[in-house]
Amino acid sequence: MPLYTVTTQIGVLSAESKAKLAAKVTTLHSKYSGVPKNWVHVVFQDYPPGSGFTAGLTSATAALILLIRSGRSADYKSGLVMRLWELLQSATGAADDQIVIGIHEVPPGQAMEMGKIMPGPAEQQAGH
Amino acid sequence: MPLYTVTTQIGVLSAESKAKLAAKVTTLHSKYSGVPKNWVHVVFQDYPPGSGFTAGLTSATAALILLIRSGRSADYKSGLVMRLWELLQSATGAADDQIVIGIHEVPPGQAMEMGKIMPGPAEQQAGH
Amino acid sequence: MPLYTVTTQIGVLSAESKAKLAAKVTTLHSKYSGVPKNWVHVVFQDYPPGSGFTAGLTSATAALILLIRSGRSADYKSGLVMRLWELLQSATGAADDQIVIGIHEVPPGQAMEMGKIMPGPAEQQAGH
Repeated sequence: MPLYTVTTQIGVLSAESKAKLAAKVTTLHSKYSGVPKNWVHVVFQDYPPGSGFTAGLTSATAALILLIRSGRSADYKSGLVMRLWELLQSATGAADDQIVIGIHEVPPGQAMEMGKIMPGPAEQQAGH
Repeated sequence: MPLYTVTTQIGVLSAESKAKLAAKVTTLHSKYSGVPKNWVHVVFQDYPPGSGFTAGLTSATAALILLIRSGRSADYKSGLVMRLWELLQSATGAADDQIVIGIHEVPPGQAMEMGKIMPGPAEQQAGH
Repeated sequence: MPLYTVTTQIGVLSAESKAKLAAKVTTLHSKYSGVPKNWVHVVFQDYPPGSGFTAGLTSATAALILLIRSGRSADYKSGLVMRLWELLQSATGAADDQIVIGIHEVPPGQAMEMGKIMPGPAEQQAGH
């Protein structure tokens, strides 16, 4: 954790585009949060045309859902989501009304990473 | 946002059924919540037979997970989930023990829609 | 609910491995939580090679996200996540830095199972 799930219509992101976007998101997240790069996971889930809808009409909707530990400030999260929007829109070329981005949180005690129950963001900083 | 993710076994929902369900869900959500239709996104994620299980046995499990901004009342949410159950069961024909529906919430400040950090439900109403 | 979503690269889990893992997870969850087996749903979402990344590099990342009702203790959740880690790592053979596990919670009043708004964990025990 963090775990990024990026959902786009098949064909919107080529293999090369996925690799580039994953690299950019990972670098951004690691710098922004101070967590090691190998904690950052990105999975792309493509859907076929006819399986995405906006306003009830077929649309190449692009969604990025990020799962992080709880404990970060509101500013941290709104700042991150704005940076992610730029990366996702730049990679997909999607219109503003075709993009959704949200950050989900789970308490560190109910998540595991690297074989261990996760420390809280504060404990982690103290430990470094 | 809202973002609906509907997960069903391949073949349960035809392209036509997906379009109809997406249109019904979008109309319901827009009327129920008062948000514009083009904020409503629906993505269908199909899985092949043998990838869904209920009670540990293969099953055409149907899941609808809805992601909304936090700030709505408990009645609003339980009322919405009951209406969604009817739409999903009617579209999939799934038995009661094959359906799961849940509403996830994220604080508006950590979600973006239409290129902007989301307003809270109350602020939005005040602005209309 | 509970709803388990297991995300792995295509080929990591055969149909037989999925069936075995789903059975083990279902048995574990039912014993651990005291809920009936037919409340437990497991869906596998595979992605093609080149769609999973760890540390910004392609990787057969394995994620298990569990959605439960809120109301369980912190010990309950950390104990469950550790048991799930063992099952997922054993089934996938993934390295420690390729696995992510997290437990999401939704209030019972905004989830449905078996055609009914879910009771809280305490109410359920009292009712048995």
